[in-house]
Amino acid sequence: MSFEIVEQKNRSKAGAELLDFARKLYPICRSITGSGIRETLRLIGERIPLKTFNVPTGTQVFDWNVPKEWNIQDAYIKDSNGERILDFQKSNLHVLNYSTPVHTIMPLSELKPHLFTLPQHPNWIPYKTSYYKEDWGFCLAHDQMLKLEDGRYEVCIDSTLRDGHLTYGECFIPGKASDEILISCHACHPSLANDNLSGLAVATFLAEQLSGLRLRYSYRFLFIPGTIGAITWLAQNRDTAKRIRHGLVLTCIGDRSSFHYKKSRQDNAEIDRAVAHVLKHSDPSAEIIPFSPYGYDERQYCSPGFNLPVGCLMRSVWGTFPEYHTSADNLDFLSADSLAESLSVCASVFGVLENNWRYRNLAPFCEPQLGRRGLYHSTGGSAPAFEIEARLWVLNLSDGTRSLLDIAEQSGISFSVIRDGAELLESNGLLEKVEPA
Amino acid sequence: MSFEIVEQKNRSKAGAELLDFARKLYPICRSITGSGIRETLRLIGERIPLKTFNVPTGTQVFDWNVPKEWNIQDAYIKDSNGERILDFQKSNLHVLNYSTPVHTIMPLSELKPHLFTLPQHPNWIPYKTSYYKEDWGFCLAHDQMLKLEDGRYEVCIDSTLRDGHLTYGECFIPGKASDEILISCHACHPSLANDNLSGLAVATFLAEQLSGLRLRYSYRFLFIPGTIGAITWLAQNRDTAKRIRHGLVLTCIGDRSSFHYKKSRQDNAEIDRAVAHVLKHSDPSAEIIPFSPYGYDERQYCSPGFNLPVGCLMRSVWGTFPEYHTSADNLDFLSADSLAESLSVCASVFGVLENNWRYRNLAPFCEPQLGRRGLYHSTGGSAPAFEIEARLWVLNLSDGTRSLLDIAEQSGISFSVIRDGAELLESNGLLEKVEPA
Amino acid sequence: MSFEIVEQKNRSKAGAELLDFARKLYPICRSITGSGIRETLRLIGERIPLKTFNVPTGTQVFDWNVPKEWNIQDAYIKDSNGERILDFQKSNLHVLNYSTPVHTIMPLSELKPHLFTLPQHPNWIPYKTSYYKEDWGFCLAHDQMLKLEDGRYEVCIDSTLRDGHLTYGECFIPGKASDEILISCHACHPSLANDNLSGLAVATFLAEQLSGLRLRYSYRFLFIPGTIGAITWLAQNRDTAKRIRHGLVLTCIGDRSSFHYKKSRQDNAEIDRAVAHVLKHSDPSAEIIPFSPYGYDERQYCSPGFNLPVGCLMRSVWGTFPEYHTSADNLDFLSADSLAESLSVCASVFGVLENNWRYRNLAPFCEPQLGRRGLYHSTGGSAPAFEIEARLWVLNLSDGTRSLLDIAEQSGISFSVIRDGAELLESNGLLEKVEPA
Repeated sequence: MSFEIVEQKNRSKAGAELLDFARKLYPICRSITGSGIRETLRLIGERIPLKTFNVPTGTQVFDWNVPKEWNIQDAYIKDSNGERILDFQKSNLHVLNYSTPVHTIMPLSELKPHLFTLPQHPNWIPYKTSYYKEDWGFCLAHDQMLKLEDGRYEVCIDSTLRDGHLTYGECFIPGKASDEILISCHACHPSLANDNLSGLAVATFLAEQLSGLRLRYSYRFLFIPGTIGAITWLAQNRDTAKRIRHGLVLTCIGDRSSFHYKKSRQDNAEIDRAVAHVLKHSDPSAEIIPFSPYGYDERQYCSPGFNLPVGCLMRSVWGTFPEYHTSADNLDFLSADSLAESLSVCASVFGVLENNWRYRNLAPFCEPQLGRRGLYHSTGGSAPAFEIEARLWVLNLSDGTRSLLDIAEQSGISFSVIRDGAELLESNGLLEKVEPA
Repeated sequence: MSFEIVEQKNRSKAGAELLDFARKLYPICRSITGSGIRETLRLIGERIPLKTFNVPTGTQVFDWNVPKEWNIQDAYIKDSNGERILDFQKSNLHVLNYSTPVHTIMPLSELKPHLFTLPQHPNWIPYKTSYYKEDWGFCLAHDQMLKLEDGRYEVCIDSTLRDGHLTYGECFIPGKASDEILISCHACHPSLANDNLSGLAVATFLAEQLSGLRLRYSYRFLFIPGTIGAITWLAQNRDTAKRIRHGLVLTCIGDRSSFHYKKSRQDNAEIDRAVAHVLKHSDPSAEIIPFSPYGYDERQYCSPGFNLPVGCLMRSVWGTFPEYHTSADNLDFLSADSLAESLSVCASVFGVLENNWRYRNLAPFCEPQLGRRGLYHSTGGSAPAFEIEARLWVLNLSDGTRSLLDIAEQSGISFSVIRDGAELLESNGLLEKVEPA
Repeated sequence: MSFEIVEQKNRSKAGAELLDFARKLYPICRSITGSGIRETLRLIGERIPLKTFNVPTGTQVFDWNVPKEWNIQDAYIKDSNGERILDFQKSNLHVLNYSTPVHTIMPLSELKPHLFTLPQHPNWIPYKTSYYKEDWGFCLAHDQMLKLEDGRYEVCIDSTLRDGHLTYGECFIPGKASDEILISCHACHPSLANDNLSGLAVATFLAEQLSGLRLRYSYRFLFIPGTIGAITWLAQNRDTAKRIRHGLVLTCIGDRSSFHYKKSRQDNAEIDRAVAHVLKHSDPSAEIIPFSPYGYDERQYCSPGFNLPVGCLMRSVWGTFPEYHTSADNLDFLSADSLAESLSVCASVFGVLENNWRYRNLAPFCEPQLGRRGLYHSTGGSAPAFEIEARLWVLNLSDGTRSLLDIAEQSGISFSVIRDGAELLESNGLLEKVEPA
């Protein structure tokens, strides 16, 4: 199957390219609106066919309104010598994301309530936002804050927060069916690598590799600001949402941890089973996590009004690793191998979904004689090999109701071996595919 | 909720009062009929509104007949010197409960078949009964029996076993619904503390504290002789029994063991789940035991013709602790703390049942914007706190079919936090209660 | 019940007889067709009423054709001195089973591709077959092969492979119902003891002991060549197959391992539960294995067109013990005790199936008064004994929908104790048997 190409693709080459792409996106100061996310989408659009949407500030989207557009040119704190002791140009994390503009001089005591640090990790800059309450602030290393001397400081955030647009990108790859597979990544975090340049890179490369393949399903890739982006998309695409059969939120998939998959609200949807199966056969340390209503945009896709079968694939779980939402989630935190393996796992999952047909055994009374078809042993007496076991499982369980994934799960044999067996038996006239109802 | 009052009530005060009440009931020589149980009901009736019922001897109750009424004034064994070597006035356990009257002189060899001891616990007096086969006998410490010298003994049991009545007490506390919660305790054991003065005391205090509260359910407390009392009540209250939605048999809940809850025959009734939930969050060592058709009066409530959702809450399990049915099950075997905690656990269970509503999310498409309602964070970036998680769970799962207990179980969050979340969301117009069908 | 007779039968006597019978069958050179299996059936027919069927070569049976009949008189390899260095008369395993005739002289280099050995077990002769590809060969100890010197060897296999018949035997024991219990053994292996003289011996003795009993079910014992025999029987007995309610394939049940039971494709059929129950109460080390579509003739009975409730009872699992399909699977590998215990386990399983009725409690409201019927204690106060617990379970769960096996499983009490309880309660008018729909 065509998905093998993706799976077999040279891993170290793919890993290096994925990391390069993340490196390219890293310096941009993204937020939920504004030029940062637009520039990000432009770079993604250089690799895949991407349609960009702009939704005006104030548009009602369910219980929410599209917020103002935020843009920032510069920001700094200068000491009494006029020296930039904090400089947005060095790290965009230094600014409380979505800060209102400010330019003033104030004593340290007044400034302090606007400073955010991480006492447990005194050299790291925290990542903080204030989307829904207008405020301004700076983030910095705790050690640096401790060294600040009393005195007056010039404080400047050269930002704008005005009516404008919320921007998101969509890449649609049509398949034979109008049924869709959704891949969703948040693209609103500034210089943070695992969360979520890893997701953006892997999704972009997946879209790239799927383009031009003959596909069963249509695929829709969303590059959106977190929360408000998913809500906006769902509000404006309620009919499209009905066509989503399977979905994945991709985030934090570039670090060195083993995989974690958080199941959809449906708990046992085909996507949940497909991911669990692929991980079981590729990453023995992988963990499957039950659904919970907090996390990333699966929260919205899995809200009860939609209840879409959308899970979330991660390596380290958001919020549980120290580097999360700090300057330590940088490019060094990513591994080219991890990125490549994440790409491969996603491709394998799509391979399961694309090939997860039901078959009917056309010779269901006793076993058919595989031997005379060259599908068995000629000399009896030894245990059947792996592939032959797979054929026997497929024959035994293909009653038209069980899918190949059902058979793979029950037999403990990997999906690709089961699928190969089914295709071989079909070409020998022993199976027929059952069209979905 | 009003149940918090019970739960929060000063534990050490409640414990001391419970133990005092048990102490008051301890000396009475109870049996399945007679003045002992009547006096017990009178003392209970001093605290709660109790209606007493007298059912005549010979009344047919299903496959059984109400037995004769047993009363006892005195009993003793005197040695040849006329000295009371065994004295009912010192312990009512000395008499085989329900003994027929006897007054005679006999040699030790003739007396011995009427003596019951516990060789494994040579200082303890066993508790023995002979309800359904007319007999007489004495129970005593094994050590004492070994010291009995040959010779003639005067044996006297000044009892009567005559047509009379079986007596039981009922305390009914009306709630908004005619649906009932049943609490049943056997009140037929003489000077035994854990089995079952503990149950009587806790049930009495529960009834006391529920009185005057605005209740969803009506509550029916039964203080009855074991087995025949439950059978009699069920035979004479078949229509009332149909209104029982949840029920608990309370026994052996005053000792120092962790809790054991024996599930109803339905195995997964709301009462079973409510008790399991409360114990999971309050007593990590608690054990849930599957239903079995032996034990206390849950046997009758769970007989197949009734199949009521009635479980049995215990600390030590009847029959498994050495003190069971011996003089060592005395007031020292009780702990004031344990009694108070048992009271609190029962109140929490009722709190779950009273508040276990189903809600419908009125903003089911994506998450509603909790932030602008002051129900969320203002500054993003950190993991949601406990209460916020509870709100998200309630919103996500409130589709009108899941109860708050369902949500508490799935989320792993305690019922009271879930309930608080639901009430807050309801008062914010985000949820509506679904009336039961 | 009559099955007790079988169960209680003196084990050491039964074991010795079973082993004797296996010894009698051991020397015969069986194959899937020919005089070896016919002679085997003749010896079985000396003990039980056996009907023999001969199906002509070429008969189509589903996807297969009945193969030619194979017979062999002699076979040997002689060295250049004319000495038999390999002699079929010493072990029929020396010939590749189903070998075509050959008589020629050839150098060692030409002979070698026709020699089969087991390098890991250099003293054992492997058992090899070539049923569906015409070929000839010899099997021998690896050590012996290494000692063969260059030179010319006279090679002779005096066999015939001609149109003839496939032969199998059937023993039918009628019961009250036309519903059948199937017991199937493959009878095609030459001098191999555990696989499957153990199965043949136990099945023969079971049939012997069932004959003449008043039985609920009819029993059908099949002694057939593996694979092609089961396929042939199913092809020619499709209507009979519809009457099979429970079934067991018996193989490898004479060695010293604990039991392994491979479940039917239905996974939770009554036979699966009956065997699991009997093993749980008789062999704590027994293991229950899920269904898989490879193994012995359960493959055919459990093919999706039939999907019969037929499991496979083994001690050591085929293919997993070193002696499997080698000369080390000889009479010493069998244990008389194991054979006797296997017989007893099968009899107990049939005892469960024969007695697995549903009952209805005729006094379902509260417990009936067992005491006045002599079915309980006269002196209260101690935990009910085993048999009384069983009676309470039966009364509590006999609502007409649960079978005695359901009750045995839920209570954890062995089936025979539950059944005794039910029969006692029935004879006391407290239960009535529910006729199957």
